[in-house]
Formats: sequence, C-alpha cells, structure tokens
Amino acid sequence: MELDEITISRAILASQMDVLIDHMELDVAVVGAGPAGLTCAALIAEQGFRVGIIEKKLSIGGGMWGGGMMFPRIVVQEEARRLLDRFGIRSTVYKEGYYVAKSIEAVSKLAAAACDAGAEFFNLIMVEDVMIKADGRVSGLVINWTAVGMGNLHVDPLVMGCRYTVDATGHDAVVARLVEKKGGDIEVKGESFMWADRAESRILEHTREIFPGLVVAGMAANAVAGESRMGPIFGGMLLSGEHAARLVIQKMKE
Amino acid sequence: MELDEITISRAILASQMDVLIDHMELDVAVVGAGPAGLTCAALIAEQGFRVGIIEKKLSIGGGMWGGGMMFPRIVVQEEARRLLDRFGIRSTVYKEGYYVAKSIEAVSKLAAAACDAGAEFFNLIMVEDVMIKADGRVSGLVINWTAVGMGNLHVDPLVMGCRYTVDATGHDAVVARLVEKKGGDIEVKGESFMWADRAESRILEHTREIFPGLVVAGMAANAVAGESRMGPIFGGMLLSGEHAARLVIQKMKE
Amino acid sequence: MELDEITISRAILASQMDVLIDHMELDVAVVGAGPAGLTCAALIAEQGFRVGIIEKKLSIGGGMWGGGMMFPRIVVQEEARRLLDRFGIRSTVYKEGYYVAKSIEAVSKLAAAACDAGAEFFNLIMVEDVMIKADGRVSGLVINWTAVGMGNLHVDPLVMGCRYTVDATGHDAVVARLVEKKGGDIEVKGESFMWADRAESRILEHTREIFPGLVVAGMAANAVAGESRMGPIFGGMLLSGEHAARLVIQKMKE
Amino acid sequence: MELDEITISRAILASQMDVLIDHMELDVAVVGAGPAGLTCAALIAEQGFRVGIIEKKLSIGGGMWGGGMMFPRIVVQEEARRLLDRFGIRSTVYKEGYYVAKSIEAVSKLAAAACDAGAEFFNLIMVEDVMIKADGRVSGLVINWTAVGMGNLHVDPLVMGCRYTVDATGHDAVVARLVEKKGGDIEVKGESFMWADRAESRILEHTREIFPGLVVAGMAANAVAGESRMGPIFGGMLLSGEHAARLVIQKMKE
Amino acid sequence: MELDEITISRAILASQMDVLIDHMELDVAVVGAGPAGLTCAALIAEQGFRVGIIEKKLSIGGGMWGGGMMFPRIVVQEEARRLLDRFGIRSTVYKEGYYVAKSIEAVSKLAAAACDAGAEFFNLIMVEDVMIKADGRVSGLVINWTAVGMGNLHVDPLVMGCRYTVDATGHDAVVARLVEKKGGDIEVKGESFMWADRAESRILEHTREIFPGLVVAGMAANAVAGESRMGPIFGGMLLSGEHAARLVIQKMKE
Amino acid sequence: MELDEITISRAILASQMDVLIDHMELDVAVVGAGPAGLTCAALIAEQGFRVGIIEKKLSIGGGMWGGGMMFPRIVVQEEARRLLDRFGIRSTVYKEGYYVAKSIEAVSKLAAAACDAGAEFFNLIMVEDVMIKADGRVSGLVINWTAVGMGNLHVDPLVMGCRYTVDATGHDAVVARLVEKKGGDIEVKGESFMWADRAESRILEHTREIFPGLVVAGMAANAVAGESRMGPIFGGMLLSGEHAARLVIQKMKE
Amino acid sequence: MELDEITISRAILASQMDVLIDHMELDVAVVGAGPAGLTCAALIAEQGFRVGIIEKKLSIGGGMWGGGMMFPRIVVQEEARRLLDRFGIRSTVYKEGYYVAKSIEAVSKLAAAACDAGAEFFNLIMVEDVMIKADGRVSGLVINWTAVGMGNLHVDPLVMGCRYTVDATGHDAVVARLVEKKGGDIEVKGESFMWADRAESRILEHTREIFPGLVVAGMAANAVAGESRMGPIFGGMLLSGEHAARLVIQKMKE
Amino acid sequence: MELDEITISRAILASQMDVLIDHMELDVAVVGAGPAGLTCAALIAEQGFRVGIIEKKLSIGGGMWGGGMMFPRIVVQEEARRLLDRFGIRSTVYKEGYYVAKSIEAVSKLAAAACDAGAEFFNLIMVEDVMIKADGRVSGLVINWTAVGMGNLHVDPLVMGCRYTVDATGHDAVVARLVEKKGGDIEVKGESFMWADRAESRILEHTREIFPGLVVAGMAANAVAGESRMGPIFGGMLLSGEHAARLVIQKMKE
Repeated sequence: MELDEITISRAILASQMDVLIDHMELDVAVVGAGPAGLTCAALIAEQGFRVGIIEKKLSIGGGMWGGGMMFPRIVVQEEARRLLDRFGIRSTVYKEGYYVAKSIEAVSKLAAAACDAGAEFFNLIMVEDVMIKADGRVSGLVINWTAVGMGNLHVDPLVMGCRYTVDATGHDAVVARLVEKKGGDIEVKGESFMWADRAESRILEHTREIFPGLVVAGMAANAVAGESRMGPIFGGMLLSGEHAARLVIQKMKE
Repeated sequence: MELDEITISRAILASQMDVLIDHMELDVAVVGAGPAGLTCAALIAEQGFRVGIIEKKLSIGGGMWGGGMMFPRIVVQEEARRLLDRFGIRSTVYKEGYYVAKSIEAVSKLAAAACDAGAEFFNLIMVEDVMIKADGRVSGLVINWTAVGMGNLHVDPLVMGCRYTVDATGHDAVVARLVEKKGGDIEVKGESFMWADRAESRILEHTREIFPGLVVAGMAANAVAGESRMGPIFGGMLLSGEHAARLVIQKMKE
Repeated sequence: MELDEITISRAILASQMDVLIDHMELDVAVVGAGPAGLTCAALIAEQGFRVGIIEKKLSIGGGMWGGGMMFPRIVVQEEARRLLDRFGIRSTVYKEGYYVAKSIEAVSKLAAAACDAGAEFFNLIMVEDVMIKADGRVSGLVINWTAVGMGNLHVDPLVMGCRYTVDATGHDAVVARLVEKKGGDIEVKGESFMWADRAESRILEHTREIFPGLVVAGMAANAVAGESRMGPIFGGMLLSGEHAARLVIQKMKE
Repeated sequence: MELDEITISRAILASQMDVLIDHMELDVAVVGAGPAGLTCAALIAEQGFRVGIIEKKLSIGGGMWGGGMMFPRIVVQEEARRLLDRFGIRSTVYKEGYYVAKSIEAVSKLAAAACDAGAEFFNLIMVEDVMIKADGRVSGLVINWTAVGMGNLHVDPLVMGCRYTVDATGHDAVVARLVEKKGGDIEVKGESFMWADRAESRILEHTREIFPGLVVAGMAANAVAGESRMGPIFGGMLLSGEHAARLVIQKMKE
Repeated sequence: MELDEITISRAILASQMDVLIDHMELDVAVVGAGPAGLTCAALIAEQGFRVGIIEKKLSIGGGMWGGGMMFPRIVVQEEARRLLDRFGIRSTVYKEGYYVAKSIEAVSKLAAAACDAGAEFFNLIMVEDVMIKADGRVSGLVINWTAVGMGNLHVDPLVMGCRYTVDATGHDAVVARLVEKKGGDIEVKGESFMWADRAESRILEHTREIFPGLVVAGMAANAVAGESRMGPIFGGMLLSGEHAARLVIQKMKE
Repeated sequence: MELDEITISRAILASQMDVLIDHMELDVAVVGAGPAGLTCAALIAEQGFRVGIIEKKLSIGGGMWGGGMMFPRIVVQEEARRLLDRFGIRSTVYKEGYYVAKSIEAVSKLAAAACDAGAEFFNLIMVEDVMIKADGRVSGLVINWTAVGMGNLHVDPLVMGCRYTVDATGHDAVVARLVEKKGGDIEVKGESFMWADRAESRILEHTREIFPGLVVAGMAANAVAGESRMGPIFGGMLLSGEHAARLVIQKMKE
Repeated sequence: MELDEITISRAILASQMDVLIDHMELDVAVVGAGPAGLTCAALIAEQGFRVGIIEKKLSIGGGMWGGGMMFPRIVVQEEARRLLDRFGIRSTVYKEGYYVAKSIEAVSKLAAAACDAGAEFFNLIMVEDVMIKADGRVSGLVINWTAVGMGNLHVDPLVMGCRYTVDATGHDAVVARLVEKKGGDIEVKGESFMWADRAESRILEHTREIFPGLVVAGMAANAVAGESRMGPIFGGMLLSGEHAARLVIQKMKE
Repeated sequence: MELDEITISRAILASQMDVLIDHMELDVAVVGAGPAGLTCAALIAEQGFRVGIIEKKLSIGGGMWGGGMMFPRIVVQEEARRLLDRFGIRSTVYKEGYYVAKSIEAVSKLAAAACDAGAEFFNLIMVEDVMIKADGRVSGLVINWTAVGMGNLHVDPLVMGCRYTVDATGHDAVVARLVEKKGGDIEVKGESFMWADRAESRILEHTREIFPGLVVAGMAANAVAGESRMGPIFGGMLLSGEHAARLVIQKMKE
C-alpha cells in the first residue's frame, strides 16, 4: 500500500476536530498539566466524566521536568508515597520519610495515567478569560491558541463550556487571577516565605472551591491562600490533586 | 515527622550527582528524546546496557507533542503499528493502513518505557562538540547546560564518554553536523522535498553508522542522506529507532 | 432567543473544518494574496475550479495597502485600466496614461471579487515545503500555521494537495525558492535594478510554468527571471495575475 | 507610451497630499477600521459628510480577519443579519438564529462599502493625543505615523481637526483612554467576564457620546462601560457601528 | 491673533510637499549627510544646482558627533584646515600639523553652510535601490522612509530622479553596493587595515565616478577601492567631499 | 609631514579631558540640547558664564529634526520670529502670523550659535541623579555615559557640580522627575491635552525655578505645570529658552 | 601520563558537589560579591566560620570593575585606607584625604583574601526567596541557577540553610526586598539624593540586623534606610563590610 | 574633613587619563584577560616593559569563572602545577596528575599578580581593527568602548600603538581574524574535535608569532592552528601564556 500525504493530513484533522467539537462542553476543565492537574484529571476521568486538560505549553509536565535546580529528581514524603505507587512511579529512600523519584518518569507516568483514564489533552491552548453568566458561576473558559499570544496576533477566542473548572496552573493561579481581576469577589494573596512543612500540611485545606464552579489545586491553592511556599517537594501537589478530584466528583454527583 | 528543606535539597543533589558521575562513561549516548531516540534508548537499555538520553530541552518528546499543525494526533502506518502496541499506545483506524493515536499519550508511554528499561535522562543539556581521539572514533560528547547557551554565558563544558552515540536530533542532525563541520569525512545533505512514501520506505537503509561510533536515526538519518521528507507520519521514526537499537546492540556485543 | 457561546464556537469550528478538510485537495493553490494572487484566484475560481488562496499574514493585500511610501495611492497604466474597471475600482487620470486609484479600495474590491468567485482563503498559514513525488511535479504544499513559526514552536506540518500551484508571493518567490533550494532545476535570479517600463513590458513573458505544476505570477515572476524592478506601479501585477489565470485554466482543461 | 517612474511617484504624492491637506478638517473622524468603525464610517459618509478613517495598522479589518482561534469564520445573530445583507456579505445558517459568514469576505465588503460611500482612509497613522480647547470638546486628533512609534523615533505630530470623533478602537478604547488619562471626566472600566448574550443586548445603550464630541462604538463602547465581554460574535459590533452613525448624523444635522 | 493647530499642520504639509514634489527631479543627489556629503552638497549647491541630501537617520552628521571614542573632538591635518576656516569652524593647534576642533561645532556649521547654499535635506529617508535604464546610468534612486524599514512594514517605495548621485554613505558605501549586488560591473572591496597617512593621501584619487552617474566620496571612496583605513582624522573626508563636488560640477557643466 | 595615528589619538584625548576636568564645576548645566536648551545655553554663555550642555543622545537637536510627522519643517508664530532672525534661521510666511522654517537649518544654526557663544557640549552623557546637600539646593548632577545604560552595564557614575541647572529635557522633564522621585517637594504633573494657543501663551510663566537651583524650560516647563500641549509649533520653546536664560543670568549676578 | 577527559570531568563534578552538599548548611551566607560582601565574608571566614558567598553573576566584583564612568579607578577616604592596606591594595594620594586605587586590583585582592580566609564562592546562583519558619528568623535561602532565570525556564529551586545572612547586594537590597514583599515587617526605602559626605558618615549605623537573622551591608544598608547616595567613593562600602562582619561574629559567638 | 564629590570625580578622571594618554604607546598589548593573557601579561610586565591588557568585558577572567558546566573548579595537569604555585593558587590532588583548584581563586590571584607586576588594565574596551603600515607589522590596535558596540552607536575609534601584540582572546582569536579578514596572509583554521591530550601537548608549538608583531597564546593559538580542542583543563593555557611571554621578551630584547 502506498502512503498518501493528504489522507494522513485528513486523518489528523478529522479525528482531532471531532474531539474538539465534542469537548466544547466538558464536565470538568482542568487548567494546567503539572503534577496536581494530571493527578486530578486522571482521578476524575476514571469516574467516567468528560475531562479536558488545557495546557498552554507544547509539552505537559509544568515545572516537574527540571527537578531541583536542573537536577531531575523529585522528593516525596511518606504520606504521598502511595500516589507514586498508584501511578507506577519508582522511588528510593534517601532517609526515613524522604523518597526520591526521577522527575521524567514521574511526569510520563502521570500523563500516561490521565490518558488511560480517558482525559483529553488540549495543549498549546491558553485561557484568556472566563465565562460567568447570570448564575454567577464559572461556566466556561475563553480559550485561544498560545501561539496567537506569542505572535502578538489580533485574533478572537472561542469558548469552551464546563460544569467545573480546576485551576492547577501553579503559583500564577491564572484562572483565579482572571476572576479576581474582572471583579469576582476573591483575593489571590500570593505565596508567603518558604516553609515546606507548614505548606505541605495546609495544602489540603486550601484545595477548595474558591468561587462557584472553580476549585484550586496544587501550588495555585497555596498561592490563593497566601500560604507558605512548599520547596522542592512534590507530595503536597499530588495529594492536592487527589483532594481536588474528590471534591469535584462529589459535587458532580450531587 | 517534620519535613526539612535542607534534607530535601541534599537528597536531590546527592542522588542525581551519583548518577551523573556514574554516567560520565556510557555504553550508549542517545542524543535527542523524540520518538526515534526514545524508542532506540528503550530497546538498548532493555538489554542491560548503560544508556544516557541527552535532551537539550526541559521536556522530552521533540516535535511529537504538537501532532500536525497543533492538532495533537499522529498517524502511523501498518508496519509500525506493532511498536505502538508494544509500548501500550492506543490507536484507532482512520482508513485501512492509517492508524491515529494521541500525540501526548505516545510521548508519555515511550518515555515511561525508556525509564522502565533503565535508560537515564539528562535533560537541559546540549551537545556542543564531540570527542575524537587517535582511533578516529566518536568516543565522547562535549556537553554543557542548555541554559548556558540561552543566557549567552561564557562557561566551559565537560566531557561524557560513550562507546556508541546515536544521533536522533531530528532534521538538524546536530551530532552529524558537528562531525562534518570539524572535518570528519561525512556530508549532511539535508532533507529533500516531501514524499512520504519514499521517505518511509528508505529510512531503514539510511539508519546506519555514518562515522565510526556514530549511528543516525529518525529524521536525522534522512537529513544526512538527503532523502525525501516524511510528512506528518511517525511510523518511520519508530521503526528507525528500533533499527538503530538493533545495530548498536549487535556492535556492542561483537 | 438567548445567544449561546458554545453554539457560536461550534458553528465556527464546524463550518471552517468542513471547508478545510474539503480543500485538502485543491485544483489550484494560489500562494500569496497580493494584487497578482487575488486577480489570478478570482479569475480561475470564476471558471468553477476549486481554488485555495494561502496567505501567511493575518490580513490579505500584501504590499498594496501602503501605496507608495505610505501614501495610500497606486498608479496603473493604460493597458491595465480595464482590470480596475472589471473589479469596480475607481480611478482618476493624473496625466495621460497614468491612472491613480486608492490602495485600500483596490485591495478590498479584489478580495471581494475573489470571494464572490468562490475562492477560499486560508490566512495565517505559511508554506514551509513542497511535495514532489515520482512524477516530478509540484503536487502539494507542506503547510503550517504562521503562528507556529512566529512562536518558534516545534510542531509538524500538514500537506495540502493541488494540481497547480501559483506562486504569487512577491519578490520573495517563496515557493520557487523552496523548489530551488531542495534541488529542483530552476534558478531564482532576483530582481535587477528599477526600470519600470522594461519590467512592465516583460512581466507577461515571465509569467509562466517554471517547473512542472508551478506557475509564477506578479513580482515573483520578475524575481525568478532576474528582470528589472517594476517601481510603484501595479498594472503589471494585475495583468500578470490575469495571464497566470489563463495559463492555468488552459492546462486544467487539457 | 513609455512609463516614467518620476511621473508615477509624483502622481502618488500629489494626489494623496491634496487629500491629506484637504482632510485636515473633517466632519467626522472614525478611529479604528474594524467592523464597527467601517460600518459607522460607511453610513455617515453616505450622508455626504467628510469622513476620515484613521487606522494604526497597514491593513484595515482589526480582529475580524482571524475569525475565532484562526478559523476565519464569524457568527452573526438574527438582528444583525440585515447588515450583512446590506453590505452584500453572504452567510449560511448554522442553527436557527446563528449565521456564519467568511471573515475575509466580511472585511473586504465593509471596506469596499466605506470607499464607495466616500470615506477616506488614513492607514499607518496613530492617534497620540486629542485636542481639547476652551469649549471643552474633543475638536481634533493629534496624529503621527505608526512607524514613528515602531522605530521609537523622536518626531513631533500634526493635528487633524474634526467636529465629531468616533472611538472604534476595540477593547483598548484608545481615544477614550487618552481623554481619561489627561484629566477628562470619564472612566474607562474595561470589559467584564464573557457573557455574550448580555453584552450583545447592552451594547447599543453603551454606544453613546461619552464626552463632548466623542462617541464610542463597538467593543470600545463595552470596554468603557465595564460591560460583559461579547465572545466570538460580530453582530453587536455591526449594530453598534450603525447606532453610532445615527447618533453622529443626528448631532451633525442639529 | 489666536494660534490654530490645523493651520500649523497645513503649513508644514504644504510647504514640504511642494519641495518634495519639486525635488523628485534633482540635478544631484548626495546620499549620506556626514562630513564628506555635507561639504560636497554645500559646494555644488553654491553653484546653483538643485541638490538633495538624502539621510537615513533623523539627524545628520553621521559618525562625526562622537569624535573619537565618545570624546567629541576631531583632528584635521594642515591641508584640510582651510576647509575648516571656510565653514567657520574654529580649531586649535595640538602639535604642528594637527588641528583639533569640536565635533559638534563642525557638524553644525557644515550643515548650516549646506542650508545657506540652497541644498535641500531629506532626512529619515533610505535608498533601497537604484534606477538604471537603457543608457546604463544611475539615473534615479528608489527611496523609502527609514521608519518603514525599522518597523519591518511591507510598503512600496517611490523614485527620485537625478542626473548625478554622490555616494557619501561612509564605509557601507550603500549605493555602490546596491549597484554591485544587482549586477553592475563594479566591486566594493572594503577598507583595509588602519594606516592613516596612506589613506589620507590616496583618498582624492579614489574619489571618482565609479559607474556612469555615480561618484563616491569620503570613506565610501576608500571602501570601494580597498584602501587603508583613515583613523580618527577628518581632513580627508572634507577634501574628498570638495573633490567630488568639483568632479560633479565639471560633468554637469559639460 | 607624515600623519601619526597615536598623535591624533592623544590630541583628542588630551584636549577633551582638559575640558572635561575643567568643566566638572560649571556655572550652569543645561540638560537637553533641543531648541529650548540650545537657545538658553547660547544666551547664558554669551554673558561669559561657564555653561555645559548635557545631551544623552549622540546628536543634539531633540525632536526638532523631524519637523511634523517626518516633514522637516517647523512653524513659528509672530512673537518668536525675532529669535529665528537673531540666529540667522530663514523663514517664509505661510499665512499671516505663521512662519515656516527648515528644521535642519534651525537645529544647525542654534547649535552653531551655542558653540560660538562658548557653551561646551557633553553629548552621549545621561543624568542619572542629582546632588542635594545640606543647603537643600540642586548643586550637582550625577552623570554617566548613555552607552552604559544602553549596554545595561553595572558602572558607577561621576558628579558634575553646577550653580544652576536648567532642565530642558522635553516632556520627560528628567531632572525634575528625579527630584520628585527622591523626595523633593515638587510635583511633575505631565502635559494636558493639545491646545496650542493656551500652551504657548502660558509657557513663560511656567518657565521658572521650581526647586532651589533648578529652572525648567521648554516642554519640560509645561509638563511640570500640567499645562496644555503645544502642538507642532516651536516659538514657545525658543521664547522659553530665552526666558530661562534671563532668569538664570539674573540669579547668577545677584 | 596521558590526560583523560572523563577523569577531568569527574574531578570537577566530584570536588564541587562535595563542597555544595557540605555547604547546604552554612554559618553565614553573604549574598553579593561586591566590595562590602567580599570584605565581610573574608573577615568572618577568618574566624573559622563556614561562609558561603552567593553571587548571581558569572564574575564577582559587582560595580567595582568599572570605576567611575568606565575609568577604572576608585577613590577611598582616610578612614578606610587601612582596609586597602590590610588587603594589599596599593593606592596613591590625589589630594589630602583622597586615595586613588585601581579598581581591578581592588576586586582581585579582596576576592583573593576571601578565598584565603576559607570562604566558598557560589557564583551564577541567584536568591529567589527566603526561608522563614516558626521562629520568625531568616534561616535559609531559596536558590536557583541564574541561567534558569535568564533562559526563562520553569525549574524549581533548592534551599540552603544558614544561621545568618548578610545582604550585600547593592542598592537593589535583594534579600531585604524579598522579606518586605512577602510580608516581613521591614521597609526598604531606597536611596535618596547624592550627598557623599552624609552617606559615608551614616553607613555604619545603617549596617545592622534589620530582621531576625538578616544583616544589611554596603549600599544595601543605605538603600534600606533611605539614606543619601554615596557617589563614586568606596571607603564606606569596605567599612560597612567590616562592621557587618563584627556584628555577625559577635552574634555567632553569643 | 568633608568629602567633596567633585574632587572625587576629578581624582578618577585625572589619574586614569594620565595613564591612558601615557599608554597610547605600549611595549606590549595583551588582548584578552583570560588565564593565558593574565599569565603572559604578568610575566612580561615583571621584566619592566610597559604592558597594557585590553579586555572587552567589564570583568576580567574570561571563561575561567564558571569552571566546568557552572561548577567553579578547574583542573590542571602535573606540568602546569608549578604555575599555580607561583601565583599562590592552592590546589588539591584528585588523582595522580590531576590537580583541582577553585576557579575564582585562580582568576583573582592571576589578576592580582598582573597588577603587582605593573601591567595596566583597560577593560570595557574592544579591538575593532589593527594598524599595519609600510613595514607590514601589526604596530597598533584600533580600539573603541565595548559599550559603543553594545549600543550600536556610530562613534569613531582611537589608535593605541604597540611594539608587540599578544592575541589571547580565546577561540575567537579576534586579532588574528581581523588580520585574516583584511588581507593579511594567515589563516585561522578553528579548533578541531575535543582531544585534550593532543591539544595540551601541542599548544606550546602553536604559541608563536603568526604575523609580524602578532603572537597568539592560549586557546587562540590552537584555534589558529586548527588543533584539537582542549577540554575543561587549564594547564595548557597557563603554559601557553608563559611561553608567549618568553617569546615576546626575547624579541623585545633583540
């Protein structure tokens, strides 16, 4: 059989466009494909919900690839180790309670798990605004190609509807800041000083619905709350992603 | 137990530095963590060799994340489908002989496989020269942080030794061009026009040891040979990675 | 009736994707939406052929908007005046044989005519390579989003098939140069000195099929031929576009 | 007849300079050549007033060329469809009440209509300040070449007088912000969240004279009022342009 | 009397446009307003010829403002001192045969002299090509706003006719290089090593008509000839400007 | 006599360094070499005071070179015409009370006059701070090479003492803003809307000592006062420069 | 003996990593390797404490290399001369009480002294945050490669513990500003006007522990206090470094 | 005694200008202040010759600060160890024949030695050309501020005479390339592949007078000769600097 370039092109266009048009109405939009977002999306999608992961960069993984200071290792504490195990990420003990894993393995396996659970990735897409209508809920995301922003092009966005949004965009807390800036009654305080122990122990209480329809997870949760900074440890991020998933699933089932 | 930031930092430094010092002498250095490089590295590492994957970017995956024109789907032909299956990457038939997979799933699972096989990733590291001594072989890579180049800093490199090098850096054919530029007797011709069928059917013959100690794979193989361009199809890249692995393993066992 | 954002988004996606998938096989691809390209596309599409106009910028019109030195007027000589009239572009006589029109009116009406004739515009898309297979003809264009290039993103292209290609990309002669660079047996000589009279009188003979399947028109025709430069006069461009249309129509009907 | 370059150059200079000197006193200056501005200018000029359209870019059309997310289609609701028809822009029904048109056709035909109505375009020109004298009205615009700003050149502006100014510069609301910044008693609130239905239904009431001599139209009107964002729908913009035209015509006739 | 902004604007437009249209046909175009160009232009204009000085920058003066290494002093040797005196530029003796003047005084008085002699300045305008017709002479310059180049705008040029052109653009030798690049039979060799004495003593023989209609002067003359570099001394430049003036005047009178 | 490069270099260094060391204590520092600064410096230096003109750019002249919108003409009203005459700048009447001059002639002759009067230019030097000691006066300027700022180099400044400083830096009002920012009790209000007549008639009252030892002139005077903008007319700038000179001379003589 | 590249690489990696892991817990972290920081670090290290000097640039020395306005000389007053002598930096008397030294000699000898005293340099490393835990003290620094910031890479930091931190980062007062920004109860006022005498005489009282665990020295001390600017004199910086050393040593011994 | 800012400024200007004027005629100019240049300059200056070290950057030290891959350690082999000892740079044995030193200590002590020997540093100055007169020797350097180049300013250079020039500018071999480019009969081949052992053993033979008056040292010597690359080892550079010093001293004494 001879390969035909046009058939290949059409195969890509047609299959992705079906997915895109289909996913213009999501159950849950997870913004940011870092450790918290991937964990959260995988766990919600496992329950059969229609989940879209929106990532502004070409690649997913966020700040996890580089480990600490470009040494590609991450550390996870005792409580979060079961999540490493759950996703098949191998780790070694450095000292009691400190588990070291390879950052690239961690990203790859979290992403693979999200795929297997049925979550759909929309990379190279940025959120430039939110949709809030008469019910006062975040009920959609105003999206555009990241490349439109990079090229400084004047091009209008489209809108993707969603019942729940999880802001897992790290300390930028992109979605929360958009809501704050446009007049929503929330305040994004920004992270405080580094104090890993405190930050890790409080992150679950900061992982919550801060505005109708909008849940924050991972570093974004601590940034909104003005909590201490976490340091080069990723357990809290995985646990927060899991917690956000539980919250959203519960709400969706109500 | 209270988390201690300094212990976390030391855990990262110590575990990665052991790996780094240990891997300054590799069996095989695979340069470029795109589809060909990941496939190749996974298959060689499975045989128990010490494999390092050197990737200049923060994330691995090369041009695969974006699918075709930012629609994150890839197409694979019949012959390469068994490699998708081998790495657990799901696909659907678009038309007979044309299989569509999700690009993000493909990257993630190839990387996960390379990790599981024992290959070690060195991301954010660029190859700025090669080491060729009296025996006329490529016997090492002159490496530096990519960030040193981005920041235009004047900082000297280090050298990583290796018995074999696989250049899987795409159409730039970075290692091959370094050998050419410094006087090695090879010519990098650059890709010709798009003609997917021809490019796919010839890639295996172009995947070969072009200079003592240096094997080219994936798009780099076609670029060196002046072959037609492949188009938005990834089967040839996976097959070329597999072929390069076989060549290297055979040589290593000699 | 209440407006629904998601319906609006789906309307845009669905209608354009149908067009895009449908137009992956064109009769004629006109590259460059300046005066020559627009004229050419309008005249071919009028004959019922499936014509796609590929323009790398957000807006069409090329260098016509700015007139001469940012004074938005263009000049057209006697022979080309009937083309102004044909497209409804008003002009005034400056001196016998020199007709002045408004540049913005000229662009708008040429584009409107191309639309009315049924040509389909693909703006923000660049041609990064051509497809040439066993028959040695340009039989397709390797396309990508311009924004991918502006953002320096590593994203693969798609392929759009076409029976004939018209290179109307101005003095860059983008498609002709791609063919030359990849080894096609043509030479792009570049424009010579300014000599309007000579340039205008020779442009029709330079408007021709320079490579199987590839016709050059407008400034690209003169640039390929090493002809004199035309100066701030647009008649030759319109006439060349018309001539290219005739050539292509004749070939298509053979 | 032999073509003479110098005659061509003089033809361009002389014809445009006459227009420029003549139009230093306008009846109405429309700033911004997007959909609202073009509609507004066409309708006012049709009444015989001297209208100048000032556009900072080389091409006119604003954000309309790129449709939604670079898919060049626009959507218009029932109420605005008659304006599409009036300007000869073809559309198809996607679903009841949602009409889809081609963005490039829409721009071209709006611009052609403005030309035919007698409006004069001044592209590549930016407004860097306004003139307000003893009567407290905006009675002129302080203009400069956009290229002067791009090249960061220190060059003084000129002044173009006008009885009425329409700010149709999109969400930047350039003229309104200049008035606000220099101490005029108005506030530009900026758009609120996306809520297309509300935005479309309120835009006509926001299209008004916000400062003596200054009318806002299109997205600028909503941005000044702090209204919801419109989403990828262009009906409101056309209707607002029409409404602004009516207001200005009425005032001019008083 | 009350000042009116619009009258001021029209005064500027009208007076300069008359000059511009009038000067589209020059006797002599001097390109580059550094010391050689200013001297040359002043001396030719004094003879009653219509002289235009085309300068790409906002300010004239070229490299003279900064003296040597930002110390704003210039040195002139014995032979050139009479030119300083002629233009009223004061100097002091540093050592026998070495006269020091203030660089800012030198520029100002040369420019004032050129104005008084009747030469017309066209600053912010670049030469992007030359016009050469059947007689094989440089008979015009293809000009554009410098700002068009700085802003990377796609805008067509105009053409300014001239009987003689003097290239006084310094070591870039802009006009000469355009002629060389487009196929004129001249070679621009570029300056050789620094050797002030040799460079100064040879500059007059290099100041000559290198192509029909094109005279080179100042550093451009040495750059074309591959002569030694002059060093921080300006006498040769003034003398070369004077010599070029004599040559051109003689030719014009023939 | 043979020219010696090293003697030339030493001539430049030695003559300028004597001037520089000598001028580290000035009577009057005029900051900004535009029309107001040049006029002011020329008139003060004529009285025999030691005047230094500090200009951050390579060339002097400020925004005067470009006339209005790159048409190099300036307009001056009746009252200021005598200053044109005083400096030998020719003008023509456009309409009663509106005199048009060439911008390049104006700059050159103002600068020549300042040189002849004995003012010393320090171009390529920026003011990065002011010196204020126990007496609460501006008694010195903290200066550095402009190139240090452009190259973003970390290099310390030097201090130039002066009895009076004139801020003639245009609407930036650089010195005034430094005093305001560091806590001096003045407010720089910024220019208001364009209203030439008002601006011109008020500029003399705004030209005053706004802080002990600091006089503002030209556009800087209006910018500090929050006055209307002047428009493309230069009479007020010349008159303000003259007025500032009178104020400073009077103070110096007290 | 034959040199082996891999042994060389391992020698560098192993020796520096031991130092790095070892110095993750410091007695004193001195941030900024300018004159104050080098003096301070040398004097504390001489007492046997474990001192790390963190410098964001590739080279140490801060703003001292360039002297005043790129003339590489520094001036030191009488009181500080003994510190020049202590570090072997030669000086000459310009005028009573004013000693001139070469800036490059000064930097080199201060750095050599710090090395000899046992302080360890960590160059190319930036402080991006501080660690403050339950005791409310600055007890660690959150560090990252400067190159990560220059390349705009998303990479997590590590943490370096320290009992005392000296902020010697010049007028940026980087560490102090981080504490202020994140909510610590201090205010960084920024330097006031130039007044060398006052600044020099007050610097010792501003050199103090401004927050538990954080001492400021050199220009950072004056910047925090809102003190006058010092001018091109370096005595106060050396004296402040010495004073900070005394304070810290006393605290460490308590 | 009260400190006076103006006296400080004059002290810096006067002392450096004396040095600068005095050093416009050098015995030896060493270009590049890296390890080879510093060693060479120190050893020549010790013999009483007038040596100037010209360094384009603000800081000296070249690529030595960053050690290998930003780990600030350098390695030196047995033969070069005595040079470390001579300059007081401490080292430790990693393995027989491999000595590790701290890079910052090495730079500081080499620079301190050059200062003590009487060499004069001219930092922030670049060489933009060479002077070659009738005798065909490099007899001077055409210098300018580096900041002039960074700011892209059009400012003329000065000339510094010298009997001998040492090009120690690293692999750029700046001076050698200038001679080659301007027509001197030498070829700069560029470094070959990494092969430390060969590079180190050959460097002394490559350290030689390649053109009358021009000696190359350090990496520049190997780059000119097309020699293998040295790798992260600095012994050869120190030895080459010493060798160049011997050559020059011998020549100077002839």
